[in-house]
Amino acid sequence: IEQAFVIKSSNTPSVTEEKVDGHSSEEIINLDHGDPTMYESYWKNVGSKYTVTIPAYQSLSYFSNAKNLCWFLEPKLEEEIKKLHKVVGNAIVQDHYIVVGTGSSQLIQAALYALCDSLNEPNPISVVSAAPYYSSYPEVTDFLRSRLFKWGGDARSFDEDGPYIEMVTSPNNPDGVLREPVVKRAKGMLIHDFAYYWPQYTAITSPADHDIMLFTVSKCTGHAGSRIGWALVRDQNVAKKMVKFVELNTIGVSKEAQLRAAKILEVITASCQRVKPHDLENFFEHTHNLMAERWKKLQDSVKNNKLFYVQKYPLQQCNFTGDFTETYPAFAWLKSKEGIDCEKLLREHKILTRSGRRFGSDQEYVRISMLSRVDEFDLFLQRLSTIRRISSGNSEL
Amino acid sequence: IEQAFVIKSSNTPSVTEEKVDGHSSEEIINLDHGDPTMYESYWKNVGSKYTVTIPAYQSLSYFSNAKNLCWFLEPKLEEEIKKLHKVVGNAIVQDHYIVVGTGSSQLIQAALYALCDSLNEPNPISVVSAAPYYSSYPEVTDFLRSRLFKWGGDARSFDEDGPYIEMVTSPNNPDGVLREPVVKRAKGMLIHDFAYYWPQYTAITSPADHDIMLFTVSKCTGHAGSRIGWALVRDQNVAKKMVKFVELNTIGVSKEAQLRAAKILEVITASCQRVKPHDLENFFEHTHNLMAERWKKLQDSVKNNKLFYVQKYPLQQCNFTGDFTETYPAFAWLKSKEGIDCEKLLREHKILTRSGRRFGSDQEYVRISMLSRVDEFDLFLQRLSTIRRISSGNSEL
Repeated sequence: IEQAFVIKSSNTPSVTEEKVDGHSSEEIINLDHGDPTMYESYWKNVGSKYTVTIPAYQSLSYFSNAKNLCWFLEPKLEEEIKKLHKVVGNAIVQDHYIVVGTGSSQLIQAALYALCDSLNEPNPISVVSAAPYYSSYPEVTDFLRSRLFKWGGDARSFDEDGPYIEMVTSPNNPDGVLREPVVKRAKGMLIHDFAYYWPQYTAITSPADHDIMLFTVSKCTGHAGSRIGWALVRDQNVAKKMVKFVELNTIGVSKEAQLRAAKILEVITASCQRVKPHDLENFFEHTHNLMAERWKKLQDSVKNNKLFYVQKYPLQQCNFTGDFTETYPAFAWLKSKEGIDCEKLLREHKILTRSGRRFGSDQEYVRISMLSRVDEFDLFLQRLSTIRRISSGNSEL
Repeated sequence: IEQAFVIKSSNTPSVTEEKVDGHSSEEIINLDHGDPTMYESYWKNVGSKYTVTIPAYQSLSYFSNAKNLCWFLEPKLEEEIKKLHKVVGNAIVQDHYIVVGTGSSQLIQAALYALCDSLNEPNPISVVSAAPYYSSYPEVTDFLRSRLFKWGGDARSFDEDGPYIEMVTSPNNPDGVLREPVVKRAKGMLIHDFAYYWPQYTAITSPADHDIMLFTVSKCTGHAGSRIGWALVRDQNVAKKMVKFVELNTIGVSKEAQLRAAKILEVITASCQRVKPHDLENFFEHTHNLMAERWKKLQDSVKNNKLFYVQKYPLQQCNFTGDFTETYPAFAWLKSKEGIDCEKLLREHKILTRSGRRFGSDQEYVRISMLSRVDEFDLFLQRLSTIRRISSGNSEL
């Protein structure tokens, strides 16, 4: 995540400077990270009765439910997580423990700790994922230089014996592809990252049922500022160890954020009912339409441009809607013609994206957030459409 | 932190069973951790106008202020932190960066990372603290088996050359003593943990002005469930690295919790003004009186008991109140007669405490939370007063 969301040029804009929808042509559009501000428009429409109020005397204690394995999980959030999975049908909650985390980032680290700490291996356990993989996986695995685990790179070239962990992200970040494990060796342990396995992005083809499944409010509802994620964990000892990690790392998870997330999930579940409040549009239907519209615009824009390509995704039937749908990923995985440093080229046009190199891939690729506010998204498409030739710094074709 | 806050006995209580204030004599009192529920009574009295409301469309973004070094810090919280330190006079904010964390636990880890990662030392850097030290320091330093830092034990016996980090906790957890660094070697780096440097616990003798100073809402206001802490950091590069840690670990800090904490700090600051809302009692005065009263009760109880001792603390003038005051620590550091396993003895009387061994000290000591709800505190004193002789399992005197 870059520290700058929108960086204004330090030049004072001249009066005659071109403006588009109130945006200066000097303005940098930051699509490097997946800040889900697209969702603001839905939440502005739901009205004030879904506001959360927290009195000053509430939630002083560290504890939410001392009898629960996850003692800092708010019972109301647990209940709403179960209801939402039941309505959407994207995961089996039964026979799993729910562990809440400060975003799924924390839960990735909790899962690595839980899986590795009890093995007492002499060497750090390799953590792998098929390229292109989420750029945070190597960083998050290695930043503390743990002796428990280490980043092992692209799962497709992993050929060591002994225990390893494979991150399976489906739909995948950055490229939106539906994923299965690729290593399939005897002592493999899997972490399924289902941040994007929701109906606005992809067909829900069956309820996922794995050992460790990670979800996050950020990409489901758009409330990234809340920092709430959850894990569905089959094995009790692994769940206990993950709870231990969150206890040591942050002594639990903010109660205010959990209570707010519970309310937001409740609203989404209510919006999916056949009989629902008149002021609630079906959340997944509404946001699925937004994603479909944005992807159509991007594909049209790229079609008329000889420099860039985006992938097409297969049609699949969604059990949640009953309809056939393509995948509309939260990121575009844009490819430019060979020999072009795509991130650099777009940066010259004041569009910040994340280079394919960060994902274990090539410089021809960039990852671009599809979840920005509508004016930023339109400005991005407009600028993209003006890139006709290679500017200085990239080798001429 | 234990997973059980109050564990009821699984036996169905008989009708004739003794009850004290609605508590069964079978009930376990958990004073192992410092759950600050004592503060609930103050916050129940402040009235509903200090409630926080968060509409559904608020704070979706990861970002709070992209232009700030700490890009996930809510401007309102930053403002209230500055105001509170100014009113209390316990720390110099000027020439320091404010980094917010998911509790000060996360910020301890962020500081260790920030100080060690840039040094590129071949061996992990030792982290030390004078015994008795906070039991979390060794755990939090070592649980990921980092190659960057390792727990080095009691600062008083540390005699290695080269860089090291000393944790200076003042007033100290567990024993409430005011602390200075003890190692004082050339390449030392200091982290000052000021969780308890607030007027309800101790005299504010001067504004602290160190390289890294940690504070937490949990022990200041009692809102431990919010998981909000902050660091005042002098060096820009260290602050940047701490921000990087929080970014990798949890991608920032819950916005709801920050907004709530900002409101709570605002109330406290308002309560300290000479001209203040009529429904607000001065927070620090009120809670200082609560602490003084509890300590008097404990000292009276121990005075009549030949088995236990508690420390006396010196009188000092407090610049915040203008009065002379003793330290009233958030924990009692109870010592029993020699040869007694104090934690075990109290556990036999259904009082859970933390053994001195966990703090690098002896089994004669236990740490006991002084911040429980009033009925639990009174029940604790009542049970303590009944312990006259050593029961089975402890060697006879």
